[in-house]
Amino acid sequence: MAAPGEALPAQQDLLLAAAFVCDAQYNRNIPFETSPQAVRLYYLYNHWTMQAATYFFVFVNLSLAVFEDPAVYPLPFLATSLVEVLCLLVFFSRLLHFAKVTPRNIFWKDAKNICLMMAILVTLTDLIIHGALKICNITSVRYSRIMRPIFLVNFTESRQMRRAFRSIRNTLPEITYVFLLFMFSVLMFSLMALKLFGDRNLQTVEGSPYFTNYLEIVFDLYVLVTTANSPDVMMPAFDFSWWYSLFFITYVIINTYIFMSVFLAVVYNNYRKHLKNEIRKLAYMKRHKMVEAFNILKVKEGSEFVVKESQWKQVVKLVAPEISTSHRELLLRISDDEQKGYVDKKSFVRLADLLNIQVITMKIRSHPLERWLPHVYNSASSRFLRSMVRHKRFVWIYDVIILINAIFIALDEENPLISYAEWAFLSLYIIEILLKLYTYEPRTFFAKNQFWNWFDTLIIIAALVATILNAAFKSTSKYNGQQVLDIVFILRVLRLIRIVDSIQRFRVIMNTLINIVPTMLTFGGLALVVYYMFAIIGMEVFQGKIQFFAAGSTDPHALECGNLALKDSTFARAKYCKNNFNDIASSFIVLMELTVVNQWHVLASGFARVTHQAAKLYFIAFHIVVVIMIVNIFIAFILEAFFVEYSLEKSEVETAIEKKIHELGVGVQEEELLDGKLIDNMETTENNLEGNGIKTSRGLVFKIASKRYRTVDALLQRMFEAEIPSEDEGLPFDEILNLSPADFYPKSPTFDSAA
Amino acid sequence: MAAPGEALPAQQDLLLAAAFVCDAQYNRNIPFETSPQAVRLYYLYNHWTMQAATYFFVFVNLSLAVFEDPAVYPLPFLATSLVEVLCLLVFFSRLLHFAKVTPRNIFWKDAKNICLMMAILVTLTDLIIHGALKICNITSVRYSRIMRPIFLVNFTESRQMRRAFRSIRNTLPEITYVFLLFMFSVLMFSLMALKLFGDRNLQTVEGSPYFTNYLEIVFDLYVLVTTANSPDVMMPAFDFSWWYSLFFITYVIINTYIFMSVFLAVVYNNYRKHLKNEIRKLAYMKRHKMVEAFNILKVKEGSEFVVKESQWKQVVKLVAPEISTSHRELLLRISDDEQKGYVDKKSFVRLADLLNIQVITMKIRSHPLERWLPHVYNSASSRFLRSMVRHKRFVWIYDVIILINAIFIALDEENPLISYAEWAFLSLYIIEILLKLYTYEPRTFFAKNQFWNWFDTLIIIAALVATILNAAFKSTSKYNGQQVLDIVFILRVLRLIRIVDSIQRFRVIMNTLINIVPTMLTFGGLALVVYYMFAIIGMEVFQGKIQFFAAGSTDPHALECGNLALKDSTFARAKYCKNNFNDIASSFIVLMELTVVNQWHVLASGFARVTHQAAKLYFIAFHIVVVIMIVNIFIAFILEAFFVEYSLEKSEVETAIEKKIHELGVGVQEEELLDGKLIDNMETTENNLEGNGIKTSRGLVFKIASKRYRTVDALLQRMFEAEIPSEDEGLPFDEILNLSPADFYPKSPTFDSAA
Repeated sequence: MAAPGEALPAQQDLLLAAAFVCDAQYNRNIPFETSPQAVRLYYLYNHWTMQAATYFFVFVNLSLAVFEDPAVYPLPFLATSLVEVLCLLVFFSRLLHFAKVTPRNIFWKDAKNICLMMAILVTLTDLIIHGALKICNITSVRYSRIMRPIFLVNFTESRQMRRAFRSIRNTLPEITYVFLLFMFSVLMFSLMALKLFGDRNLQTVEGSPYFTNYLEIVFDLYVLVTTANSPDVMMPAFDFSWWYSLFFITYVIINTYIFMSVFLAVVYNNYRKHLKNEIRKLAYMKRHKMVEAFNILKVKEGSEFVVKESQWKQVVKLVAPEISTSHRELLLRISDDEQKGYVDKKSFVRLADLLNIQVITMKIRSHPLERWLPHVYNSASSRFLRSMVRHKRFVWIYDVIILINAIFIALDEENPLISYAEWAFLSLYIIEILLKLYTYEPRTFFAKNQFWNWFDTLIIIAALVATILNAAFKSTSKYNGQQVLDIVFILRVLRLIRIVDSIQRFRVIMNTLINIVPTMLTFGGLALVVYYMFAIIGMEVFQGKIQFFAAGSTDPHALECGNLALKDSTFARAKYCKNNFNDIASSFIVLMELTVVNQWHVLASGFARVTHQAAKLYFIAFHIVVVIMIVNIFIAFILEAFFVEYSLEKSEVETAIEKKIHELGVGVQEEELLDGKLIDNMETTENNLEGNGIKTSRGLVFKIASKRYRTVDALLQRMFEAEIPSEDEGLPFDEILNLSPADFYPKSPTFDSAA
Repeated sequence: MAAPGEALPAQQDLLLAAAFVCDAQYNRNIPFETSPQAVRLYYLYNHWTMQAATYFFVFVNLSLAVFEDPAVYPLPFLATSLVEVLCLLVFFSRLLHFAKVTPRNIFWKDAKNICLMMAILVTLTDLIIHGALKICNITSVRYSRIMRPIFLVNFTESRQMRRAFRSIRNTLPEITYVFLLFMFSVLMFSLMALKLFGDRNLQTVEGSPYFTNYLEIVFDLYVLVTTANSPDVMMPAFDFSWWYSLFFITYVIINTYIFMSVFLAVVYNNYRKHLKNEIRKLAYMKRHKMVEAFNILKVKEGSEFVVKESQWKQVVKLVAPEISTSHRELLLRISDDEQKGYVDKKSFVRLADLLNIQVITMKIRSHPLERWLPHVYNSASSRFLRSMVRHKRFVWIYDVIILINAIFIALDEENPLISYAEWAFLSLYIIEILLKLYTYEPRTFFAKNQFWNWFDTLIIIAALVATILNAAFKSTSKYNGQQVLDIVFILRVLRLIRIVDSIQRFRVIMNTLINIVPTMLTFGGLALVVYYMFAIIGMEVFQGKIQFFAAGSTDPHALECGNLALKDSTFARAKYCKNNFNDIASSFIVLMELTVVNQWHVLASGFARVTHQAAKLYFIAFHIVVVIMIVNIFIAFILEAFFVEYSLEKSEVETAIEKKIHELGVGVQEEELLDGKLIDNMETTENNLEGNGIKTSRGLVFKIASKRYRTVDALLQRMFEAEIPSEDEGLPFDEILNLSPADFYPKSPTFDSAA
């Protein structure tokens, strides 16, 4: 096989096709006119080390906030600014690299490239100005810090995050109208409240006048929507007459229950609509490129155009060098169902999908001990031991042990008997793992998708290490290794999670939850971007206004958080002094508290006291952006993920592979693997394998990671793709890029006729 | 037309068919073997007065809790128990009536009838025992009071509520597993918290030891899931080291965000699944009955069976005597498209759907003034005035007036100028209504579906009456008519809502919200049932433990709510004394506060202090039932309603009517009505009408209440019905009744082949 660089002129087309296929597989923008060098550059650009490096520098750049003033760990300005310049250089060269592998007109049309360049330029300018002013001892605000998340969002790799942001942007117009209606309702109720309660001379719990100032009423009722001041805000009126509680109940029903649900509905509906659209767009693009690749490779065979088996193999090898020969043979058997020696258009177009399906090729190996010490391993007692370990009761016994362990953990640590028991439990767990390794083939036991085996082993080893470390600290010195002990405690409790895996129903829910984790990271990114921006602003505005004094501090203003304005405030009384914006870590924690919503009005009022009433706007803005938008998108996403899991039957393409695997008698069910029945199956499958046509090595078994899609996106993509008829080659490339949701919905049938 | 009682033997079949149709229209259980008397009884049973009477007594029975000890308005035991016996008698006779019109085997197979009988029996027994004991001066608990909501749920009329309860029951198994997993997670985190923070000697804000008792930790962390004690529960650990905040953040992300979303997903998914199933069942039943009715009425015409036009008309007249002749003619034209003089099976089956569509027949009448004083009404100045009122600027001017009014309302009431301004605004609004009545035909203006016209007029008239009353009170006596004044205030502010109707985008959202209202009443009922039960239990357990003393009370324990156990508690400090279970009204308000969730732990701890720690279980149970189940169903319902509104195109049946109306040129768009273009249209449509075939009176216009479905259910029903192929007559009747969701989902295609 020729490496890309040594490509002969005749193979250029093949390479282009490979690039196309590769591209279709990963859904990337691709260079339209390619030379071998361009392809090499393109490969390099997409190499995982380059992507990892980009992410690394993005996070270095973001984490500068930890070291810059106000810092968690202060570093001199020179150090942080040098690192920042380095990051900017990396970003710039990455952008340059991207420009090299992208046609010029495409590069300049892409808003995210322009955005990146602007961000680099502005940051650099700001840095220089700030540095110059610092030399003259003038302190200035480093505005450009707020732009740092742009690098996280706009590099090619963060496709999903950009999609989420696009989804938010698309939802904005619709949500704005609902929000205006909602605010209108709040303002109306506030007016009613002013008229009803304003002249009653009622007092709040703190003794201040109740509902006399219109703006304060609006704030209080806005807080009531978030339920944070319920029922306190109602108590004075309720105490006066219980009829007045009806006012607040009506308010909560309309504004909290109905309007907040409507927000969720609007966000969810738009999220679904736009996601569907984007994924459909991707599916069309993929198919379009596959057809182009086919057109390059095709030769005439009888009345139809096809791709020869040899060329097909070469492309696959080039595109996915990591898959095994037997896996490739399997794919060929699926693509060339009747073994005619060539692949037709329809099957070829499916190739990218086939490559995307995780087929785990497993060699059924005999246990290493069986090879080294066959006599001992196959002795009667060894066989008995192994059958014991495979028995259901073995699991049950360990479940009981875990339960007993849980009780011991809850008991007092000081008792020496119990601290010895801990060692006993640890040994029992280690024995369990050793026994399982003795019984099952180790590489099968630690296969990629054996989540629970990995989890168990890692937790036990970590617990072992930490417990030994802790014992060492205890015996050798006076040093109280509290942090190690904390880790020991956490690991000890985490071990108990294993019991969940023993119960089938729990396992299903857990698997769904584990499946959503990768896509949840997108939301982690989304939240990080918004949090970072708000944290930077918060630090500029509130930094140093509120101080925290550790318990036992002799500072006279310790109880007022070092700020007299907070005297007698709810903020100081609740001892919230540590909730401040004095460094990025604290800021993030405060923002998290604001996301959880409860008591956010206390925080808002506290910060408004030490600065200005207008500071409340910062907190209201945060509530609108994070709680009404981001959290609702998060909920919408979890809902959608669960519904898809509930409703999706296996998609067509996957079933084709599965059918083939089944036909060839080389499949294993995931359940069998989990239950450790693999070895039992081996003996039967081995015999079957010999008879069939694939020249695979003996003892080979295929397994589809059936329900374990890597991301919900992949899952959705497959779902929507099933809706596109397979003959449909989609629109011309440019048109696909400009599709809007409206193009898909009412006109969907026209695609068929256009094709 | 013969009245049902005078039916001749030959008309029995017709009557049966009419009963069937009527029944299919309302989806009721029907008497299978019918005599004229049975049909009369059946009509009587379904008469709206009987249904209203049943509801009336159900609510009388429920509201007894207001008058029974502990009472809001105390009445002697004899009075309440006599009323209760009366209610029970009514219920029993209603049940007897139902038994008369239902075949015996169906009656006894129905669990709700058995349930009702048991409830009547138990209540009666309990009442007698309680009365007897009362005579002997022994106080006993009236357990049967908790059964009263059974009457609300189990009478035939509350079909939707029963469906909601069935939906909850069906969701239970699935939600239980998620709940167990969730509780497992809470217990694990509690164990970790105990180990991490238990030995640190930390203190809460109140100075009590922090996280030392396992059960208390579990309660605190359960409360944290509801976010009610965030961030207070975290502060002591956070003050100690900011690293520990990570523990709480992880906890909130997993348990609040992820698990609560999963609960919503599970509830929503099941709600949708079961609703779809039930509605499909109804659709099949309806079609089944329509086919039976067809089979009774059919005559052979050529090669196919049909229903004669005359018989068709008779059936329609019998079934829906309230619809106009012209409406009936329209339906006939749709059913008998080619005017062949008979209706075929397919069209006949559709009749029930056609009857369900709200077609508003409107006679275009000339304005009464035009008839009485044509000279004046058609004079140049009158014409100018009317064109002015119809002009867009007229709406704008009044929008500006409303805005100015809003400012005046917010200003001080005491200023005499402003209180005169109020009269000016009132007059302006009245002038507006009079002008509109002068311009538009009054019966068109006050048509059934002109929500905003009704709203405006009612609000203005009420405001006028209340303002006059208030002025009268003020001038004649010292009596401070505060309650009248409150109503005046509320009405004054409600007037401002009108401005929403002027903006198209808001109107759409508002219409959707108004459409959901009827079905939201189902949830009102659901909430009432659960609240009532919890309130009864709450009153038995907590009654009198906490007392409220009005401000200025001299009671020494006023600050501790009359209970020394509450000394120094957060409950007393927050002045929550009025949140008690001393009567049903207070109980409902407390339960509402618990539903809103915030501060519920303060309430729970307060009540636990005055009784027993186990009392917290009552509050946790309430949280699980109401917040995790009912509120999630409510949210699921609003989501679904919005999605249906978003996604549903007009259904097939409706389009058929609309097409016909359009063909005949007798349609008006709703928008035209709202914009007051009706009169302009009249002149053109009048001419068109004369040419067409329907013998309608001159100036008749049909209008479909297009997007205004009465309930979301009706809407869903139409949605799912579209999925059933029209040739499909469904399964045999008995099988339909026993269908489960599983029957519909995977096997859906088999219905086609079975038909």
